[in-house]
Amino acid sequence: MNTNQNQTPDNIIDLNNPTLRERLEHKINNKTKPPGSLGRIEALAVQLGLILQTETPQLQAPQMIVCAADHGIVAHGVSAFPSDVTWQMVENFLSGGAAVSVLARQHGIGLTVVDCGVKHDFAPREALLSRKIAYATADPLQGPAMSATQCEQALENGRDVLRGLPGNAVLLGEMGIGNTSAASLLLARLTGLDIATCTGAGTGLDAQGVEKKTEVLRRVLAHHPAVDLPLDVLACFGGFEIATLVGVVLQATLENRVIVVDGFIASSAVLVASRLAPLVRQRCVFAHRSGERGHHRMLEALQAQPLLDLGLRLGEGSGAAMAWPLLQSACVIMGEMASFESAGVSRSEGGI
Amino acid sequence: MNTNQNQTPDNIIDLNNPTLRERLEHKINNKTKPPGSLGRIEALAVQLGLILQTETPQLQAPQMIVCAADHGIVAHGVSAFPSDVTWQMVENFLSGGAAVSVLARQHGIGLTVVDCGVKHDFAPREALLSRKIAYATADPLQGPAMSATQCEQALENGRDVLRGLPGNAVLLGEMGIGNTSAASLLLARLTGLDIATCTGAGTGLDAQGVEKKTEVLRRVLAHHPAVDLPLDVLACFGGFEIATLVGVVLQATLENRVIVVDGFIASSAVLVASRLAPLVRQRCVFAHRSGERGHHRMLEALQAQPLLDLGLRLGEGSGAAMAWPLLQSACVIMGEMASFESAGVSRSEGGI
Repeated sequence: MNTNQNQTPDNIIDLNNPTLRERLEHKINNKTKPPGSLGRIEALAVQLGLILQTETPQLQAPQMIVCAADHGIVAHGVSAFPSDVTWQMVENFLSGGAAVSVLARQHGIGLTVVDCGVKHDFAPREALLSRKIAYATADPLQGPAMSATQCEQALENGRDVLRGLPGNAVLLGEMGIGNTSAASLLLARLTGLDIATCTGAGTGLDAQGVEKKTEVLRRVLAHHPAVDLPLDVLACFGGFEIATLVGVVLQATLENRVIVVDGFIASSAVLVASRLAPLVRQRCVFAHRSGERGHHRMLEALQAQPLLDLGLRLGEGSGAAMAWPLLQSACVIMGEMASFESAGVSRSEGGI
Repeated sequence: MNTNQNQTPDNIIDLNNPTLRERLEHKINNKTKPPGSLGRIEALAVQLGLILQTETPQLQAPQMIVCAADHGIVAHGVSAFPSDVTWQMVENFLSGGAAVSVLARQHGIGLTVVDCGVKHDFAPREALLSRKIAYATADPLQGPAMSATQCEQALENGRDVLRGLPGNAVLLGEMGIGNTSAASLLLARLTGLDIATCTGAGTGLDAQGVEKKTEVLRRVLAHHPAVDLPLDVLACFGGFEIATLVGVVLQATLENRVIVVDGFIASSAVLVASRLAPLVRQRCVFAHRSGERGHHRMLEALQAQPLLDLGLRLGEGSGAAMAWPLLQSACVIMGEMASFESAGVSRSEGGI
């Protein structure tokens, strides 16, 4: 496969512009508030300014991309829900009744659903893109979940989907019964963590179910002992929706869009993408710490501090949508708040 | 003073309606998602349904009330900013340049500023209510910060302000150089915690400044050893903006409005109000855990789990405004999400 997997493409810009960072920090420190008193929102405002390369970041036409696919591994009983729920939930997204549908509507976020490999034939709909690689990944206890060619195609699909959408911010969503298993495998193999640390209840397994799932995943890892390059790991253990999201993330990185990362599955796509191009990380805002076991370890691996910690573990992009107003708050604070000078407010008397 | 300080007025309803709670929980458990997968947002949705006494809570015409006042205790050097910043920030609120101004605008929240006792004469403005008790509280090292009559008047002012505003939700904001000192004193006296545990950097004291502030506050407490009834504690140690907020909270409780609590100062008003009428607590949504030392202890005393934890320590109501969209999310999830039945989605196969 790709022999330069860990090289950053030449056309990805390093956004760590010290001059702009200094100007952004100066600007936020002169707002009418004690220095640092807006906490994490201040760092977020600086990050958004660096991504969008302006002292006055403004978010435009945000796009939620929900990638959906089915997983061969579900044959081994790793999920509390049947595979059919994947296509049923895609229909629910499209008819506006799912969590991500109502949250995207609440915040004026565009919603695009991508069939990356669902075990179902959908009637065409405006908000549904068909980028189906197959009717589910293969069983990773038999061979790799997907071929190298399929993996490359999924990445290219993701790039293509992103290129076709307007705006300067993308929110990552996903649906796929079995995909916490894929994400756990990616986390374990890319970080070296034990699979038990990486495996959680998904949609709601009980303790016995988690134990069984963990043992299945342990066998999958043992079946592919030598696979360690990011794209090979993705093909071997990933899902079509995850691989498509990796493509979305890489293209969004190239285009310097803000990438709002949802929970465990979306983070696994970012983990893979950041191993291919470390500068991905600069564009990412991590929406929340999921209630799914393993997500906090994934966030650690990404050196990410998420915005919300509400025990969400639904996926779909629902946590990304809920965090979205905080990004908008960071922008209006940067753009609309008065400075000490403009408002005629006295500064601190202490040596602060 | 009031000899029935800890009795709940007869006209406050106990909102813990088991039948409605059961219906709300049933409703959210039937939404198309694994049970519990929306984490704390599910409990929030149930709480909002209980407060508004409906299975379909809808938030209407939210009102941010920013109460402002000055504090006699600042003469002892407890703040990093001069008292003049109180009135300067009131002007900043009114001209739309403060954090709470831009955040309220972002979310369509009405903004009312109340002069409860600022050391300044303001020109009349539409969004400014004059409910000035005096040009600052008295020095609590000389006597009580306010008289019992002043305290009762501030409470009545708060009730009156709330009665004059539309909507079914109120967000608590405040401004007052020196008011972290008042809030720390209220926390220490009402909970019995040592004042060092309750005292933080406020607008940005350094370690030496915090130490000095702590010693001043310790002397204040020692000066009033026997004061322990809630309203007496409020009068002795509080501020006019805090007492006015207590009135706002009590009236909002009577009217079954949703009360969105900001940080350290707003929480201190809720602490006092909940000692006067424990059912206050049912109406409160705690927006965030402040970076101000002592706030997590105050939240513990209120058995409160805040929504955000972003190191905010600005006050003004800024954290309440930032959390606001999460309350709206809880409502749209309750009102607009499909059920398993309506969407034709299969349920879990496991015994979940």
